Amino acid sequence: MTYAAGLASAVPPVSGPGAAGGTTPDLSAAVPFRGVRQAGIITPAQDRMHFVALDVTPGTTRDDLVALLRAWTRATERMTLGAEAAPGGVAGGNPLAAPEDTGEAMGLPASGLTVTMGFGPSLFDDRFGLDDRRPEGLRDLPPFRLDDLDPARSGGDLCLQACAHDPQVAVHAIRNLIRIGVGKVSVRWSQLGFGRTSSTSTTQATPRNLFGFKDGTNNLKAEEPELLDQHVWVQPEDLAAVPGSAWLAGGSYLVARRIRMHIEVWDSTSLQEQERTFGRRKGRGEPMGGRDEFDAPDFDRLGADGGPAIPRTSHVFLAHETQLGGIRILRRGYNFTDGSDGLGRLDAGLFFIAFMRDAHQQFVPMQRALAAKDRLNEYIVHNGSALFACPPGVAEGDPDDFWGRSLLT
Amino acid sequence: MTYAAGLASAVPPVSGPGAAGGTTPDLSAAVPFRGVRQAGIITPAQDRMHFVALDVTPGTTRDDLVALLRAWTRATERMTLGAEAAPGGVAGGNPLAAPEDTGEAMGLPASGLTVTMGFGPSLFDDRFGLDDRRPEGLRDLPPFRLDDLDPARSGGDLCLQACAHDPQVAVHAIRNLIRIGVGKVSVRWSQLGFGRTSSTSTTQATPRNLFGFKDGTNNLKAEEPELLDQHVWVQPEDLAAVPGSAWLAGGSYLVARRIRMHIEVWDSTSLQEQERTFGRRKGRGEPMGGRDEFDAPDFDRLGADGGPAIPRTSHVFLAHETQLGGIRILRRGYNFTDGSDGLGRLDAGLFFIAFMRDAHQQFVPMQRALAAKDRLNEYIVHNGSALFACPPGVAEGDPDDFWGRSLLT
Repeated sequence: MTYAAGLASAVPPVSGPGAAGGTTPDLSAAVPFRGVRQAGIITPAQDRMHFVALDVTPGTTRDDLVALLRAWTRATERMTLGAEAAPGGVAGGNPLAAPEDTGEAMGLPASGLTVTMGFGPSLFDDRFGLDDRRPEGLRDLPPFRLDDLDPARSGGDLCLQACAHDPQVAVHAIRNLIRIGVGKVSVRWSQLGFGRTSSTSTTQATPRNLFGFKDGTNNLKAEEPELLDQHVWVQPEDLAAVPGSAWLAGGSYLVARRIRMHIEVWDSTSLQEQERTFGRRKGRGEPMGGRDEFDAPDFDRLGADGGPAIPRTSHVFLAHETQLGGIRILRRGYNFTDGSDGLGRLDAGLFFIAFMRDAHQQFVPMQRALAAKDRLNEYIVHNGSALFACPPGVAEGDPDDFWGRSLLT
Repeated sequence: MTYAAGLASAVPPVSGPGAAGGTTPDLSAAVPFRGVRQAGIITPAQDRMHFVALDVTPGTTRDDLVALLRAWTRATERMTLGAEAAPGGVAGGNPLAAPEDTGEAMGLPASGLTVTMGFGPSLFDDRFGLDDRRPEGLRDLPPFRLDDLDPARSGGDLCLQACAHDPQVAVHAIRNLIRIGVGKVSVRWSQLGFGRTSSTSTTQATPRNLFGFKDGTNNLKAEEPELLDQHVWVQPEDLAAVPGSAWLAGGSYLVARRIRMHIEVWDSTSLQEQERTFGRRKGRGEPMGGRDEFDAPDFDRLGADGGPAIPRTSHVFLAHETQLGGIRILRRGYNFTDGSDGLGRLDAGLFFIAFMRDAHQQFVPMQRALAAKDRLNEYIVHNGSALFACPPGVAEGDPDDFWGRSLLT
């Protein structure tokens, strides 16, 4: 059976300082599902995202959970190959049964689909006998100053992060995984992201957030494996305090924060105020006092007014590793716009996702510093929050492996 | 000043039956803003959409409205050229003033941006002295059986439909037009669409809706100008009953319907039931009893059970011109997914947009027939509705022209 190719998979021009010598990637291609690491962490950030947090339904047993994770793993591996490579489901199915695939991605290429799975702290309560397997770092984030968290946008027993260059492919993946989980899990919250706000590779140009700024210029990149071991991947020694938690070695913690931006307020502020808030220039993205986007910020440099060129309350200053004892994280967030609120304002912002070795040692002190002083706080509010532990990847060459096997068996 | 190129603009493979002999379009290119018709109606449907309905704020005068439409026209023309072609705003601005452009599309190409403007029936009440200029066809749609309309997702004095191949470009356009309108208009509702569900050109393959079906195969196409005059463009004689309404000649009515799909229910039904609901096969999209997607449906053909191969309650049968006295419309809708509802179900569906010569003569009888009998009603609910009259385009070579000039001056 042949399918007509349908929607776009994006093939963007790649240029800018980070892309010198790079080649234009084929954004319709597949990203390998199996490997030492889960895809969707240091693989190049795709342009679209659908994220879902799920709760396990009362009555679901540990065996049910294992069966679900096996089914999710198989379905995800199939979907990441693209509908063209795996056209089953509809044509091959029994017409009197529900199709095995919902079909809206039929004819679309793989589009770089990755699905990344994580376990929330609440999964380790007394329901599944996992009490002694909870990593020390997998405990709820503390409250932060200025947080306005909505419980309906926070937490979750499990998460699935689907990213692709075609939104139809990402939405299709999440929808089918939800369908596979019917009766065992239910959706707690979900979030669509329409544009990436981070680069995870030096071949990608830095995109802009909805404040119009290049954000995440100083992000960790896939090409720096030593830094990733230091800042992103959970190391065996991190898990030594709880022997049963060794399953997470080689995995990573995922922090998600839904950050609403008050864009109407921002849009009425001056360019000078905006640049002093970020500590970068808006046009090319260079740090204030610098010349090029990738120049290291010079925090000693003085500005025309005799004060620091980069204000001490700017986002760049407060989030910089030099101000945080060397802390760095891998950002992988997305812009969102979810209609408008009851007051006619766009409900838009940044769905912040970051991966790190220990959220309590990295995200928490960073966010405490930002919550205390960041000038950006006048223009944003965090209204969703979640933490998940993403296990290592599904092993190549082992058809029996599945997400979380080392935790659940 | 040079900008690093940022996010993707999609360059999809174009194939399938409709694309025979077609060339791959450059989806980063600009679509001309000026012309006899507004762009965004019969220009090729882009992949992403941001739609907003606005109300005019109390206290706004007719002169204010004219000034707003002038400013919107200028800003839209600039934005449709792409940020690369019109890099002003940030760099050229006064640092002590708010930037003229919010900047998040800096460095991105035009990405096929179109913005289409329309006037709602409510604009023609006694506020602006437009009572005698209201076209006969610009009156609220009647209620339909099974409607569950949310006033917060319906109506509006004005609408702006932004479509582009890059969602950041579409969102940027709407956000800046809202910003320009601050104090004169406020957002009533807005909708993001992530994937087109219609083709408006024979060079485009038919995409799939979230039920997994090719939908709109029989859509009107830009390459059929006589059919467009017959079904899409308002003709002078249509306006003869109200002489003051002649401004709409050459324009079109836009019907928007937010159609929530109960996808969890749909996903549990059999392939046979799904195909009998649409009257098409799911795989290639051919009408039941036919062989190719673009085969004309044969409503006389009998199926294996001795009944019609295409059920009389199917969507294809009921919406077909032969069953509606020759009625046709130009569909231009989008898939949406807006998170999940409080019950853990995805809030997903079709944001139906269609353009036509007279909504009360075309959409109303079509929707009445569907609401009465369509088997699809078990799986959908209409929860938003609006009607707008889109004036003709802004004239080439006339720098003083603006959206709605013939109505307001």
